[in-house]
Amino acid sequence: MAYNLLKGKRGIIFGALDEKSIAWKTAMSVHAEGGTFVLTNAPIAMRMGQINELAEKTGAQIIPADATNVDDLDNLVAKAQEILGGKLDFVLHSIGMSVNVRKGRAYTDEKYDFTAKGWDVSALSFHKVMQSLYKADAMNEWGSIVALTYMAAQRVFPDYNDMADNKAYLESVARSFGYFFGKEKNVRVNTISQSPTPTTAGQGVKGFDGFISYAEKMSPLGNASAQDCADYTLTLFSDLTRKVTMQNLFHDGGFSNTGVSQEVIEKFS
Amino acid sequence: MAYNLLKGKRGIIFGALDEKSIAWKTAMSVHAEGGTFVLTNAPIAMRMGQINELAEKTGAQIIPADATNVDDLDNLVAKAQEILGGKLDFVLHSIGMSVNVRKGRAYTDEKYDFTAKGWDVSALSFHKVMQSLYKADAMNEWGSIVALTYMAAQRVFPDYNDMADNKAYLESVARSFGYFFGKEKNVRVNTISQSPTPTTAGQGVKGFDGFISYAEKMSPLGNASAQDCADYTLTLFSDLTRKVTMQNLFHDGGFSNTGVSQEVIEKFS
Amino acid sequence: MAYNLLKGKRGIIFGALDEKSIAWKTAMSVHAEGGTFVLTNAPIAMRMGQINELAEKTGAQIIPADATNVDDLDNLVAKAQEILGGKLDFVLHSIGMSVNVRKGRAYTDEKYDFTAKGWDVSALSFHKVMQSLYKADAMNEWGSIVALTYMAAQRVFPDYNDMADNKAYLESVARSFGYFFGKEKNVRVNTISQSPTPTTAGQGVKGFDGFISYAEKMSPLGNASAQDCADYTLTLFSDLTRKVTMQNLFHDGGFSNTGVSQEVIEKFS
Amino acid sequence: MAYNLLKGKRGIIFGALDEKSIAWKTAMSVHAEGGTFVLTNAPIAMRMGQINELAEKTGAQIIPADATNVDDLDNLVAKAQEILGGKLDFVLHSIGMSVNVRKGRAYTDEKYDFTAKGWDVSALSFHKVMQSLYKADAMNEWGSIVALTYMAAQRVFPDYNDMADNKAYLESVARSFGYFFGKEKNVRVNTISQSPTPTTAGQGVKGFDGFISYAEKMSPLGNASAQDCADYTLTLFSDLTRKVTMQNLFHDGGFSNTGVSQEVIEKFS
Repeated sequence: MAYNLLKGKRGIIFGALDEKSIAWKTAMSVHAEGGTFVLTNAPIAMRMGQINELAEKTGAQIIPADATNVDDLDNLVAKAQEILGGKLDFVLHSIGMSVNVRKGRAYTDEKYDFTAKGWDVSALSFHKVMQSLYKADAMNEWGSIVALTYMAAQRVFPDYNDMADNKAYLESVARSFGYFFGKEKNVRVNTISQSPTPTTAGQGVKGFDGFISYAEKMSPLGNASAQDCADYTLTLFSDLTRKVTMQNLFHDGGFSNTGVSQEVIEKFS
Repeated sequence: MAYNLLKGKRGIIFGALDEKSIAWKTAMSVHAEGGTFVLTNAPIAMRMGQINELAEKTGAQIIPADATNVDDLDNLVAKAQEILGGKLDFVLHSIGMSVNVRKGRAYTDEKYDFTAKGWDVSALSFHKVMQSLYKADAMNEWGSIVALTYMAAQRVFPDYNDMADNKAYLESVARSFGYFFGKEKNVRVNTISQSPTPTTAGQGVKGFDGFISYAEKMSPLGNASAQDCADYTLTLFSDLTRKVTMQNLFHDGGFSNTGVSQEVIEKFS
Repeated sequence: MAYNLLKGKRGIIFGALDEKSIAWKTAMSVHAEGGTFVLTNAPIAMRMGQINELAEKTGAQIIPADATNVDDLDNLVAKAQEILGGKLDFVLHSIGMSVNVRKGRAYTDEKYDFTAKGWDVSALSFHKVMQSLYKADAMNEWGSIVALTYMAAQRVFPDYNDMADNKAYLESVARSFGYFFGKEKNVRVNTISQSPTPTTAGQGVKGFDGFISYAEKMSPLGNASAQDCADYTLTLFSDLTRKVTMQNLFHDGGFSNTGVSQEVIEKFS
Repeated sequence: MAYNLLKGKRGIIFGALDEKSIAWKTAMSVHAEGGTFVLTNAPIAMRMGQINELAEKTGAQIIPADATNVDDLDNLVAKAQEILGGKLDFVLHSIGMSVNVRKGRAYTDEKYDFTAKGWDVSALSFHKVMQSLYKADAMNEWGSIVALTYMAAQRVFPDYNDMADNKAYLESVARSFGYFFGKEKNVRVNTISQSPTPTTAGQGVKGFDGFISYAEKMSPLGNASAQDCADYTLTLFSDLTRKVTMQNLFHDGGFSNTGVSQEVIEKFS
């Protein structure tokens, strides 16, 4: 693609870990469409990741920030504007992690300090990011903020564990903050509810392969890939979707509105 | 049960065909709870059915009515009040039929006069019933009107065909008429979105057995039976739910909010 | 804009009446983005409209078609491919009309042949259009079909009358047909649920001005205009949204997820 | 009422503060219907409340418990079974508090340790309660767990602040835990999304009176009262709703599905 959809637009992209990650693909696509941005990730995630490679490819600078730390975020927001030469037009939040999942705790056996940590990283961080942007008046009018989420916020996928509750909180934050960001700054805030995606993070979830295969068979157009998600995100960052706000947008090949597919039902006949 | 939940309440029950049908079970349960009612069905359905047996068991009279015929409905509403000795407190609409399904037409190959007939019988009939009740001022304050529906109105179940669209229309009628019936008469209108149920009507749908089995495995509490639905309907007819209106209420053992269950996912691992 | 988003894409646009209409704005924008198309409208609507002017501006041909008439639609689909030189990539359905509204009948006093006519024009027509496309195998892979709808399908707006029920049916058709069009042809089908828009058609609805003003105050970003809707439709026709299907997409400045706004509540304090 | 709907059933009721509170009314109604229960509240809330009076009227014992403290909850669950003589059939969670609201912090100016505290009290406490019940195997088969919530979880009500996000989390917990409690123990878990209610807690929210008045005008049946909510809760505790689970049930006189009412629109004409 080379539509110049985001020419002259500036932003911040959270969560690019390696080339499988949605944030990585989005950064590449935003770059191709003429946008400039700062990349950020938690210091610890960056040590594990290959973000320098992405920074080179896209001409981006990297500013480490712990998304649960308000000072880090305030610094990020200030630096990003400095580096990019003005207020911001787009922000991608692609962050999530459940300590209960990592430690193999069942949903009915949560350890609550794990739960609190996962909630802070995965859900409250989105509020913190927006509060930093809002207080610094860092977004241009008609800017666009997007967070990635998953349908477990609406329906139960047993292995998704407490990430389901975190995503429900995250989506609520998008609506709540979207109201104020809309009224006061004409900025839109949305979440994309993406197909299960074989990223490095996603693959950590128990039973992930079986689930990917099930979702593929339940989605009339098949699962949306990380690249598909990057493409879709471009439209939400562009000027063509200025009046879309406070929405949770399913990007899933039709999974969300498929009660059952022919291929799935055949396994039960 | 014998709670006397519906003591002194009068109503009309549409759609009792045989003892497998939800309307039949509901009639039996309403009778046990002290309610009195008139039974009605399309003249043609009655010839096939065993409604006389139900009438005897519940001390009810039968008034045949084609639910697509306004004159029949006006007559029914008048007669029911006469027989029961006053205005009505509850109405159950349990009517549905797709000619396209019966004739084996695929959803992508509808014959449109079949579609129109199915829509009239399955969806518009609910408006017609309520308009007759409304114009005749036949409902008591805090009366309750319930129609049965299915989740195909929200998500696709391929074999459900044009009944999905009919149910979406029916649920919209419940909301729309519920607004006016609420404002003007303090009457509530709701739909119950029931598990797939092995009634005589339900069993006509292609692939129904496989689907019942799938739904059972996807519902944490298992499928809701016809008797379960009758029980639930009692609560909606009772005085304990006076402020519930314009809702579509899932009665399905949790199916509607289960994205996938452990048992289903195992078939894909 | 000149992104070339739709370069080389062919389609059909239903329902351009005059320059206020969403379909008109969409036609202009699609043309600017490099798409070619056939315009169509009911013969009677065309006599009243200025569609020739639009055809000239966009280099489009006009093929009259009654969207309730299968023969007309089959002819349209065949001719459109002939004229445009290949299969189609996009279709916009922007058709709606309630005879009950036009004749001033209240929702609780519907005349049912009016209801049936409005349902056929506003809702079933979308199925008929898609069935014609499907049977003729007229859509390219990854094509996109969009219909315009309104939130009255989910919540009651008293003056919207039976159009609410028609829109609920229409949205269900989008999901149902979207399943089959997705599975069989990799074509996506969505509806856009647009802010109330002061088109010539919209303005016919009773109390429309008060409602527009209310919606404006309830929408954090204000109402979406006809041009905004055209812009958004471009993204759904583009290759950037290939995995979005069977969705009802609110395009309304945030109205749909605003329970109440500060400005509205102040009127009640 | 005296239906004996809950004869022989045992439970725990959280959150009865004074006679305006929904939990208080529910306790009175459950008692009238033959149920027995333990009352509980946070030690600090109990000092301010009149819970002793309620305990006397209903023959209930009081066990203080901080609902964020797992040890307190484990003790409560054990003692309640001891006192009542067996496993439990029903639990009501009616707990909520935002420190940000109390301290007058705007949603765009949250203090995050306040946010974390409110989340723990209002949302995570529901998980903690259920985990204690689940681990102790304290619920009878076909038992029923209900939490109270508010529609701010779906749509923005600006003054509701971070309680909106807490309620979204709470409702997700109901679904997630409902899956496991259903599968493993045949226990149902639901939330009731209640009209704004002039309880002592509710009245603390800024602009509450204007909002109550607005909601009254937007609800075709008027706002549901605390007593209405108690009535409705009875049905969910009864054996008549055994297959209703993982649902968020609007109990609001129709507010949730009313886009606008005649009375509201008139203020804008």
